[in-house]
Amino acid sequence: MGGLPAGARVAVVGADAAGMSAAASLRRLRPDLDVVAFEQGPDTSYSMCGIPAYVGGLVADAEDLVVRTPAELRASGIAVHTRTEVVALDSAARRVTVRDLDAGRERDEAYDALVYTAGAHPVTGDLPGVEHGHVVHTLEEGRRLRQVLDARDDIERVAVVGAGYIGLELAEALVRRGLPAVLIDRNPQVMPSLDPAMAAHVERALVDFGVEVRLGESLTGISAAGGRCAAVTTDRATHPADAVVLALGARPRVALAQAAGCAVGSSGALVVDERMRTTVEGIWAAGDCVESRHIVSGGPVNVQLGTHASKQGKVAALDIAADGDGPARFPGVVGTAVTTVCDTEVARTGLSTAEAEQAGIAVAETTFGATARADYLPAPGEVVVRMLAEVGSGRLVGAQLVGTGNVGKRIDVAATWCQLGVRVQDAQLFDLAYAPPFGGVWDLLQVGARKLTRTLGLSPVL
Amino acid sequence: MGGLPAGARVAVVGADAAGMSAAASLRRLRPDLDVVAFEQGPDTSYSMCGIPAYVGGLVADAEDLVVRTPAELRASGIAVHTRTEVVALDSAARRVTVRDLDAGRERDEAYDALVYTAGAHPVTGDLPGVEHGHVVHTLEEGRRLRQVLDARDDIERVAVVGAGYIGLELAEALVRRGLPAVLIDRNPQVMPSLDPAMAAHVERALVDFGVEVRLGESLTGISAAGGRCAAVTTDRATHPADAVVLALGARPRVALAQAAGCAVGSSGALVVDERMRTTVEGIWAAGDCVESRHIVSGGPVNVQLGTHASKQGKVAALDIAADGDGPARFPGVVGTAVTTVCDTEVARTGLSTAEAEQAGIAVAETTFGATARADYLPAPGEVVVRMLAEVGSGRLVGAQLVGTGNVGKRIDVAATWCQLGVRVQDAQLFDLAYAPPFGGVWDLLQVGARKLTRTLGLSPVL
Repeated sequence: MGGLPAGARVAVVGADAAGMSAAASLRRLRPDLDVVAFEQGPDTSYSMCGIPAYVGGLVADAEDLVVRTPAELRASGIAVHTRTEVVALDSAARRVTVRDLDAGRERDEAYDALVYTAGAHPVTGDLPGVEHGHVVHTLEEGRRLRQVLDARDDIERVAVVGAGYIGLELAEALVRRGLPAVLIDRNPQVMPSLDPAMAAHVERALVDFGVEVRLGESLTGISAAGGRCAAVTTDRATHPADAVVLALGARPRVALAQAAGCAVGSSGALVVDERMRTTVEGIWAAGDCVESRHIVSGGPVNVQLGTHASKQGKVAALDIAADGDGPARFPGVVGTAVTTVCDTEVARTGLSTAEAEQAGIAVAETTFGATARADYLPAPGEVVVRMLAEVGSGRLVGAQLVGTGNVGKRIDVAATWCQLGVRVQDAQLFDLAYAPPFGGVWDLLQVGARKLTRTLGLSPVL
Repeated sequence: MGGLPAGARVAVVGADAAGMSAAASLRRLRPDLDVVAFEQGPDTSYSMCGIPAYVGGLVADAEDLVVRTPAELRASGIAVHTRTEVVALDSAARRVTVRDLDAGRERDEAYDALVYTAGAHPVTGDLPGVEHGHVVHTLEEGRRLRQVLDARDDIERVAVVGAGYIGLELAEALVRRGLPAVLIDRNPQVMPSLDPAMAAHVERALVDFGVEVRLGESLTGISAAGGRCAAVTTDRATHPADAVVLALGARPRVALAQAAGCAVGSSGALVVDERMRTTVEGIWAAGDCVESRHIVSGGPVNVQLGTHASKQGKVAALDIAADGDGPARFPGVVGTAVTTVCDTEVARTGLSTAEAEQAGIAVAETTFGATARADYLPAPGEVVVRMLAEVGSGRLVGAQLVGTGNVGKRIDVAATWCQLGVRVQDAQLFDLAYAPPFGGVWDLLQVGARKLTRTLGLSPVL
């Protein structure tokens, strides 16, 4: 108790969502502490999720995505060192070794508490020619891709490898710029976090928008001509492409912390408790590099989203400020996500069918079509709803929405139900908003709750 | 127990949302029962909420709003008698007297169980000239208004008296048709279910759209010339108007049931239990004519919304089918409502400040502006958020949203929190969906939850 003494030093590794949210909270909670941050790249606190919009030109400048610049952070009392890589972490001596990437010099920096928010690094593999591919995991990488697209007028076709959220958003952004895009993934579906039937609707939206979609093809290499990407080869075809973006996901960046003794969980991310403490005294962690508890399955997961990073950073800061007796506890995640792809909104929460199976949770499922507005109004929109509930209890286990008509954020109701273990038989009678511009008298999610109640043989069947 | 015997007769008074939802459920649950319905008007099962859109021409035909016609209901085994008014109810003899409005003849009809879904009747008062005003509480009345608007080319201005949901939607619909509209209300604000600061934003949207808004003026009469409305007079002005719509709200239609001994509560609506039983044996009630428990305040309220009517009808049917031992219980209402007025979405749930005060619940409040999408995207929209939480516990007591950018249905998350008594300090850390097209990393409602947690001195302050 008692907290860190005045003047104690908190070092933050990484200066994006998790790290800067922790640092800002620490400045507010304990202005007497010395907060220093080390960031490998040139940018701080930016919206990683906005990069596809920037690449596509919907957002004019990379700087528009920056929430707080290094100068702003410094003005707020956070000593940010950009272009400064942490290369070693000695948890016993409470010391990091950092390298100034511009000067090429290393130095040691002491800390009393350390917030490890090193994020994740994009997976690229070591296939032949991989060096000709772009990744867009950082704003700097986004700038590079956009510069190439802006500068070259000989680009006739771009390949995007990887059909997760970022890959899809990039493929759309390219087509929006007028660049033909081929989207390649080794899986038989886009967006592996969706059940296949729902992913098929997203695939259709991509195809209708003009994206060429090639599923079930594994990348085998990138061939270059004149030092530039010329084609992408897979186990099934060769796709001519003047540029290629690798959007193959990212792995938690844990190496330094792991070397310092921090435990890594089965998800590949750092083990932390509810207060974001790692297993090593004096080291907290938050953001893309940590493992969270999935509230529905109870199992460990690594979910890389800014929304979790921001919350976890604050929880860590509260604990550090109180020296290990912080009042906040990160409750875990429900697996909620939303995006807009090719004018289609896609949202999910809880577990997919495959995830429920892995977790050993027996579920009943329903999938049905509906409209986003009353069907007698102009442009009622189309939505496909999928919901899963647990056999026996009726607890909502997951939900997925794909559709037009601004239905994405409706997933939050299902997310709240998942978070609190609400049963579909009870959810049927909740007081949700109704008016014709928003659908029918029975809310979409309540239609699903009714169907599942019936399927599961629960009561009452309304 | 044991249920009604096969062939028993269930009479339904009224054939709109509550009544036909009960009747349809009864047909499904107990095809052996005889279900008969009496409806005063010519229409059955229509979307009352769609009437303003029809009056405005957004919906071409009145029939587009009809979910099930009398013929369709009959084909499904529900013996609907339209243009048939129930004029007496003898609960001891289990008999109603009905009048065939076309033939002008009365007859008695026996029942074993009765579902009283008589709805509400519009308030008009008895001011001079009130007979020249239109009401639009039924589809038939909507048809009449639309016919007048379609037929007459001498209408230069229409007055709408009453600035609740329907009044606002009608004023908008008139302006959309190219008809100047003046909206008059004796209250100092539009939409009394909103707190004044929020209502001011709705008023601005109306004015910007071209509606002339006159608040704080009490209707004193309608003056006619040549048998038609010529002007609306208030205690402060005379407003020339070639037609006038009275949208002054509606009172629960309880007279027959009350005369038969059914208790009426302080809200003016019929007292029912969770299974929709009135206080008289053999009579159930549902829809606009019943009183519900407000889950947040615990007090009795009369909320006239199709969404409750449909649910209550089903709950009543389940109880009748099981002869008083039905498995479903209507849990009450949270006061959730949504609408779109002049391209602005308006939503509310829980209690307003005034309602919380009446209920004796001490609250802290927050009101703030935000964007519906990330602020760096084109057309980020504008939203004003207001939230109320209970002093001491932190339980969310109410929320209101006014804005552009499709935020209306986001109220459902707050509604679910109100329904379940979620505390703002916990809500801060829920896993809600984030992506730039839907706002910032912190969901709007979580921003509010954070503010309220801080204001209330609760923990953790993130």
